[in-house]
Amino acid sequence: MEFDTGAVEAEVRAAFDGYEAALGANDVAALTGYFWQSPKAVRLMTEGGLYGIEAIAAFRKGRDVSDIARDLLRVDIVALGPDVAVATAEYRRRGSGRRGAQSQVWVRRPEGWRIASAHVSLGAAG
Amino acid sequence: MEFDTGAVEAEVRAAFDGYEAALGANDVAALTGYFWQSPKAVRLMTEGGLYGIEAIAAFRKGRDVSDIARDLLRVDIVALGPDVAVATAEYRRRGSGRRGAQSQVWVRRPEGWRIASAHVSLGAAG
Repeated sequence: MEFDTGAVEAEVRAAFDGYEAALGANDVAALTGYFWQSPKAVRLMTEGGLYGIEAIAAFRKGRDVSDIARDLLRVDIVALGPDVAVATAEYRRRGSGRRGAQSQVWVRRPEGWRIASAHVSLGAAG
Repeated sequence: MEFDTGAVEAEVRAAFDGYEAALGANDVAALTGYFWQSPKAVRLMTEGGLYGIEAIAAFRKGRDVSDIARDLLRVDIVALGPDVAVATAEYRRRGSGRRGAQSQVWVRRPEGWRIASAHVSLGAAG
């Protein structure tokens, strides 16, 4: 399928940056709003997943946000079609020094780019 | 976009199962072959990513495969379009009892369904 890869990747990078800013501010409404408002939305963590936007929203509201500040070590955006792209990131938390990885599948919806699926993992300091 | 969600999810589930069988057998050629043969393919782990099919193939060849046997605790396939779906899984390794999560973005290519992006995380026993 022919599409403008660069344009899609720029749009998704902007959405990614908006999400990252919301994370740093722990803006719960914004963070939840970036997700696909669907029972099919998924947020996976090493210890288990959250399935559906209701579970994702509940997690956000109850989250411990100490040690949430982080630096991004690398970000890659790969467009897979005109309406879907994957954003991957490696990060290091500022407080604890723990390293982790994040992947997100962004889909273009009538309301804008939204995260259909995300996976966040967090390891040891390093 | 209208498409047959059930048909896509069944096709991707079959590909997922094939990949899982290759993992259990440590069939390196098959495992590498399931990935998109592209410099844009990504395999993310908690401690960092592999970027491009060459890096992914090199990782496979050198991998320690003790403790590779695992049970799947949950698998979900969500079609995002006629040519793209996300497969998420929670697992527990049989030897060590460590739990983890896996997410894969599958894309329909002329040669078949391939993994464009994957994220694998592994935590403590539990």
